[in-house]
Amino acid sequence: MDAYKAVTTKRDTRLYSSEPIDDEVLRRVLQAGRMAGSAKNREPFRFVVIRDKEQMAKLAECGDFAQPLGPATAAVAVCLDPDGMDFDAGRAAQNMMIVAWDEGLASCPLRIHHADCGREVLGLPEGWHIAIVVALGHPQPGTPMSQDRARKPFEEYVSWERFGQSSP
Amino acid sequence: MDAYKAVTTKRDTRLYSSEPIDDEVLRRVLQAGRMAGSAKNREPFRFVVIRDKEQMAKLAECGDFAQPLGPATAAVAVCLDPDGMDFDAGRAAQNMMIVAWDEGLASCPLRIHHADCGREVLGLPEGWHIAIVVALGHPQPGTPMSQDRARKPFEEYVSWERFGQSSP
Repeated sequence: MDAYKAVTTKRDTRLYSSEPIDDEVLRRVLQAGRMAGSAKNREPFRFVVIRDKEQMAKLAECGDFAQPLGPATAAVAVCLDPDGMDFDAGRAAQNMMIVAWDEGLASCPLRIHHADCGREVLGLPEGWHIAIVVALGHPQPGTPMSQDRARKPFEEYVSWERFGQSSP
Repeated sequence: MDAYKAVTTKRDTRLYSSEPIDDEVLRRVLQAGRMAGSAKNREPFRFVVIRDKEQMAKLAECGDFAQPLGPATAAVAVCLDPDGMDFDAGRAAQNMMIVAWDEGLASCPLRIHHADCGREVLGLPEGWHIAIVVALGHPQPGTPMSQDRARKPFEEYVSWERFGQSSP
């Protein structure tokens, strides 16, 4: 898919079919995350791939709204070292979700509200935390991908030189 | 450009030529940011585009390492409302940088360490802050785009089911 199309049509979706994810596709998704830039090139993240249903269920209990992990066929936990920044985790997760979408996979980022719970389930080192879990799966047939979901108008998003200044 | 190629070859670069950025290209970059998902679909960000050299210089003084704003031909400040999360700003910024790269533009995210300074320069409402400023420009001829810059090995980035577990 063309990059612009992949970036602008990717929507966060939470319903997946049970069709498994091809290993090579999963590897491309992970590679996309790995190639994300990071502050001072520190590469503060590590990715834990979860496919085991029991492990997935345990992790789902660590987030207040992490139920979509149930039907997900795989999930990638983006883990940050003690100095890692959530902004960089956002970059890596977005890379993964764009490439997933390019490969026909739906995805949704899920927050792990209970940090200690997540740390224990994944066996993270002291000081690390899960910035986000990206749920992945083939879209459930019939699920609208909401590609035309409204956004606030362009003119509301964008201002020029100073906040709220409407003309370039 | 193919989405996978755009995502995996994008590097953060800080040297730009003085060639101006086409308005339509800039619009596509902003549209890419606008279409990024966000927690609870809150769309907590607004983008302030800076092209005025004086405004750019003022903003550069608000970050400890924001000098690359000097040669940038444009910059987009990703501003977050009081409840906005840096993770979501990372998603929006990454969308913009991937599409910029797809259009042949180099970019680099720059942190505004002095929040009050940035807020004043851009005239942000109370409680808002600048999550990041994305510097944009045509690559300076002869500047290596470091497309083969090393990353930690794939096997170090990725583990399976639990942190540090090396086989799927």
